[in-house]
Amino acid sequence: MPNRKATAIACSNIAFIKYWGNRDDALRLPANPSLSLNLGDLYTTTTVAFDKGLEKDEVTIDDRPADEATRARVSGHLDLVRQRAGHHTAGRVVSRNNFPAGAGIASSASGFAALTVAACAAAGLELAEAELSALARRGSGSASRSVPGGYTEWVMGKGNATSFARSVAPPDHWGLRDVVVIVSREHKVVGSSRGHGLAVGSRLHMSRVAAAPAMLAACKRALLARDLEAMGTLIEQDAVMMHAVMMTSRPPLYYWLPATMAVIKAAQGWRAAGLPVYFTIDAGPNVHLICEAARATEVETRARGLPGVLDVLVSRPGGAARLVEEHLF
Amino acid sequence: MPNRKATAIACSNIAFIKYWGNRDDALRLPANPSLSLNLGDLYTTTTVAFDKGLEKDEVTIDDRPADEATRARVSGHLDLVRQRAGHHTAGRVVSRNNFPAGAGIASSASGFAALTVAACAAAGLELAEAELSALARRGSGSASRSVPGGYTEWVMGKGNATSFARSVAPPDHWGLRDVVVIVSREHKVVGSSRGHGLAVGSRLHMSRVAAAPAMLAACKRALLARDLEAMGTLIEQDAVMMHAVMMTSRPPLYYWLPATMAVIKAAQGWRAAGLPVYFTIDAGPNVHLICEAARATEVETRARGLPGVLDVLVSRPGGAARLVEEHLF
Repeated sequence: MPNRKATAIACSNIAFIKYWGNRDDALRLPANPSLSLNLGDLYTTTTVAFDKGLEKDEVTIDDRPADEATRARVSGHLDLVRQRAGHHTAGRVVSRNNFPAGAGIASSASGFAALTVAACAAAGLELAEAELSALARRGSGSASRSVPGGYTEWVMGKGNATSFARSVAPPDHWGLRDVVVIVSREHKVVGSSRGHGLAVGSRLHMSRVAAAPAMLAACKRALLARDLEAMGTLIEQDAVMMHAVMMTSRPPLYYWLPATMAVIKAAQGWRAAGLPVYFTIDAGPNVHLICEAARATEVETRARGLPGVLDVLVSRPGGAARLVEEHLF
Repeated sequence: MPNRKATAIACSNIAFIKYWGNRDDALRLPANPSLSLNLGDLYTTTTVAFDKGLEKDEVTIDDRPADEATRARVSGHLDLVRQRAGHHTAGRVVSRNNFPAGAGIASSASGFAALTVAACAAAGLELAEAELSALARRGSGSASRSVPGGYTEWVMGKGNATSFARSVAPPDHWGLRDVVVIVSREHKVVGSSRGHGLAVGSRLHMSRVAAAPAMLAACKRALLARDLEAMGTLIEQDAVMMHAVMMTSRPPLYYWLPATMAVIKAAQGWRAAGLPVYFTIDAGPNVHLICEAARATEVETRARGLPGVLDVLVSRPGGAARLVEEHLF
């Protein structure tokens, strides 16, 4: 096999119905289905080069060598690609996020989606979107949702091959904006992969899991009908449910900060005063405010005025992960 | 029947396993059993005089005439006592809380417990403690737990007569302190009585209710063994579970403020650094920090130093509701 190199771009995503907890940790088969929006303005560009001149995989993220834990995780993901392609060549991975490293935005979704698409191309594998999504899932669950475009749903599936995400509406279906309100730049004390394993210890986990399919179905209906109030009510409920599971797991995970609560209360106040905006919160303290495009500037301006807010990023809907370059070397 | 007057004192209480939601709203039969500690330093003194010279019930709280909603609620409670005693004389109720009116401490538990004990005595009724507790429950659910002394458990019971609280340990069983950290003096937008009715609308309510008996049993074991770590872990979990139910009810109830979160995070930080203290939060934004007597001053001092803290009150365990005066006039 010749040395081959490929570059892919994949968007980050924000979940409306969250993924939290696995029914199979090793395969990252989720406890519940989830629904998200790709974030077109927050993305990762990753180049993978399989190079016979390398002794072991090398991983560079945002111009720095990755720490050993990250390198091992990326290397494990390349192993899945190599197994499938039937070769054993080491790879050089160069990944760049277009959002600030300390922005408190998880790069695992966009990162593993871009890595999967680039690595498969570099390995000469031609996989269907569903296969790429299922493979991305193995690196980071939410990465499965960054493979297809726009508004995407990750179905639970029955096993490894059938648990993948698919698009439920294209990016231009609805001009929503995610106004990301950054209140902390610290790295998580407990990462998501370990957090997922703790979910089953919460006495609220089973009811959240039991409720998720119906909440997802209702959220998808609202999304397809472009009904922000119906959808927003559900995404706020679901975010609280996930954080309640986290706070009641053993040991508990408290991601909310005082400023998180301040943004929640502010958004609810703005809404009561006539500005349609709804919050959701991933596994961290930052708050994502979801609104229609026409209100995004107002939401951003107000958010910047809140005490404790460090920065605000705004993103449009984004498309599917895509290959941008591929060649032999 | 002669005119008769009686005065009773009853403590407030802080629940370790919370009461939230009823299986029968009219009778205030709870969805789950609960466990609390009477607060000996935060109490209500209530005098009830049944006076043939009155045309209708009069209610004075902290030297002011009660608003009409409160007067009607107190009057309804007096009706229960009058029905039982078989008379129809109107009453004059004078109630005083020893804690500041704007301290954000609910006075319904201590208030309805003192009202029940005073009104029964003034009506010439001699009831057993369990009967007084069941009757207090009709006025405010948590008032049932302020009738017996010390650490008390409100059992669900099968109906009106069997749903009452009983003491599980006297006040001197364990010298705990409740360090009440006041971050807001505002009155609740949604009162507890209405909030209880919303609980069933939360997708987390049933799992909280299902978990409560086992959590209560474990909490009671820890309490009897004076194991603060085991008990504290459970009371934090239970408080989060109740607030998660509130935040996911329809409409949602968000009682937490940024300063609430700041106190939670601070307490967890102090604990990680070796100070044994655990939080719980009632239906409001203020935080109750539970610790042993020897650490109360340190916890109080640290709490006073937190931004957003308006005041701090400290209470010892308290005894049963008691009659302090009774005479004809």
